[in-house]
Amino acid sequence: MTDFGTRDYYVGAMKGVILSINPDARIIDITHEIEPQNVISAAFVLSACYRDFPPATIFVCVVDPGVGSKRLAIVIESNGSKFVGPDNGLFSFVLGSNARVTAIENDKFFRKPISSTFHGRDIFAPVAAHLSLGIDSRELGPEITDAVVLANIRLNRTNENTLEGSVIHIDHFGNIVTNITADMAGDAFQLEIGGRLISNRREFYAGAEPGQPFVVTGSAGFIEISINGGSAADKLDVKTGSPVTARL
Amino acid sequence: MTDFGTRDYYVGAMKGVILSINPDARIIDITHEIEPQNVISAAFVLSACYRDFPPATIFVCVVDPGVGSKRLAIVIESNGSKFVGPDNGLFSFVLGSNARVTAIENDKFFRKPISSTFHGRDIFAPVAAHLSLGIDSRELGPEITDAVVLANIRLNRTNENTLEGSVIHIDHFGNIVTNITADMAGDAFQLEIGGRLISNRREFYAGAEPGQPFVVTGSAGFIEISINGGSAADKLDVKTGSPVTARL
Amino acid sequence: MTDFGTRDYYVGAMKGVILSINPDARIIDITHEIEPQNVISAAFVLSACYRDFPPATIFVCVVDPGVGSKRLAIVIESNGSKFVGPDNGLFSFVLGSNARVTAIENDKFFRKPISSTFHGRDIFAPVAAHLSLGIDSRELGPEITDAVVLANIRLNRTNENTLEGSVIHIDHFGNIVTNITADMAGDAFQLEIGGRLISNRREFYAGAEPGQPFVVTGSAGFIEISINGGSAADKLDVKTGSPVTARL
Repeated sequence: MTDFGTRDYYVGAMKGVILSINPDARIIDITHEIEPQNVISAAFVLSACYRDFPPATIFVCVVDPGVGSKRLAIVIESNGSKFVGPDNGLFSFVLGSNARVTAIENDKFFRKPISSTFHGRDIFAPVAAHLSLGIDSRELGPEITDAVVLANIRLNRTNENTLEGSVIHIDHFGNIVTNITADMAGDAFQLEIGGRLISNRREFYAGAEPGQPFVVTGSAGFIEISINGGSAADKLDVKTGSPVTARL
Repeated sequence: MTDFGTRDYYVGAMKGVILSINPDARIIDITHEIEPQNVISAAFVLSACYRDFPPATIFVCVVDPGVGSKRLAIVIESNGSKFVGPDNGLFSFVLGSNARVTAIENDKFFRKPISSTFHGRDIFAPVAAHLSLGIDSRELGPEITDAVVLANIRLNRTNENTLEGSVIHIDHFGNIVTNITADMAGDAFQLEIGGRLISNRREFYAGAEPGQPFVVTGSAGFIEISINGGSAADKLDVKTGSPVTARL
Repeated sequence: MTDFGTRDYYVGAMKGVILSINPDARIIDITHEIEPQNVISAAFVLSACYRDFPPATIFVCVVDPGVGSKRLAIVIESNGSKFVGPDNGLFSFVLGSNARVTAIENDKFFRKPISSTFHGRDIFAPVAAHLSLGIDSRELGPEITDAVVLANIRLNRTNENTLEGSVIHIDHFGNIVTNITADMAGDAFQLEIGGRLISNRREFYAGAEPGQPFVVTGSAGFIEISINGGSAADKLDVKTGSPVTARL
């Protein structure tokens, strides 16, 4: 998963590096169209699908506005899976309490020369390939305990009946994904977003009145706002980071 | 093949589900950029390439505006290939007279919990993975004989010399694909589309006069309208569903 | 690598053809979003990543404005790798002095019938698949010694201190890639591009002043112009082929 897009050689080069180290690696794309440098959206997309992959999958995730600066490169091991990428909050949703986090420092496992602009190819891809061959993460560097967690993915409960959250993703269909889960919101609530109050809830997309926004529980468990036959994000003029309030 | 786009986790999740069930599955993308909910375009794209895949390929196709409603989920078996997806006409072009159609009902083969918005991940992907492991389609549900066939992909022959069809796809280059086949149109005809009469025919794209629309037989056997160095769809202001008339 | 885009059946059909001939082929996408018919950009993208793939990789590259006309189809063998595609300059950067070039003529290895619009599926994909099974390139046709090399990728050194080059690629982030390499430009120079003089150089993207263009050595070794948090190509109104001058 990256924000590299698919029109350049970036993703191909990473796969070439992986296969040069481990010719038997199976490589599956999650997406390479994370909004450029949008770490929150990347964190959401990863959280929504990583459980669907086989045990022991190695996730290589590069949305990395700080490439070349002093941010750490890390490997997270959690429940048998591994996550490789920059330490910038990208793994906030998958960083469970029993996760082990390793700083990647041993350049023995890097592609040389190491550029200052493309750590996806030079550090993350080769490290992931070596992990797929069975190296121990302790060979990569020291354990750390202070991996970055995004502050703005957390909800505020401003009073007993009010949750203040934000938009964490706009999908391909223009559906608006919030950081409010169906579990937290319960059965009865009204959403305030983009200057609109929305109380209409539906079980699925089909059959809704065209043009009227409604609330639906998305397939990742988060509350979404949709419009039948159109883009809810365009209609409500909302983007990633926009505020949303649920009144229970 | 889906209309899920490639910027979300949807396609990755489907592949993760497939590999969790059958780690040896080979997964190839046809496209995930079918125009959202455009079942006709999806039916055309599938028809244009399925014969190029190896025997016994399982095609998982999800363009599914009715997800969560009462439309059936089906498996079609035809000439050794299998097609898995919603029963909404998507398989109109591949549904030969000797095809066997099964309604997918047995939730033993589904991912749990089954969402009401993402049957691609919860029903179609896992069913396809189980089929790749060799289960019999009769384990999935009853045979049906009334699979949906799209009405608007058929041509009208309004008189001996006139075929009335429609645009079924606009490709990446802006080429306009009609549902009139080269076989039906024969050697001499004039096309009327977007208020223009076009009689200029060419064998291939190179060398045509820039800016002048011409007729070419596309690689799937359908009559297309192209413009050298530009988008014919933009120039003629035509989209999927627009009418086209061939005067023989 | 193609300019076919990813919304049609074109790429899927090519992969289906390859797997029908060699079911064990591993297929990796570089990109299918080369700007339509932009052979220079394609040549750059290929040059920037082919060394990262395993030895003996077969590169199938189709950016082919002359499809159906008299341009040759070729296979290039160089340092153990093979390159399959049209003879239009696409392979200019990888065509080393010890390369062997074969004209593809033997239709025994083609998909039938051969369309005049889709040689990617009918010629290049099946020939690559047969090469992956070990056929000798001499079975395909005669050796040639005059493969096309693009003229406009070469630099002019107009005087001791001036290099005149051009833009060869705009990447997903709007970074402008020139055909001037860091090796040629040396340590001190000023770039003139889009009516602007740029002398600000940086090691990496992070930390640059927002909105101010700067020069960086890209991961493929070419001089690039970037803007922190924006598209340099949009800001400087530059596209592939635009001139750039380096004053040393």
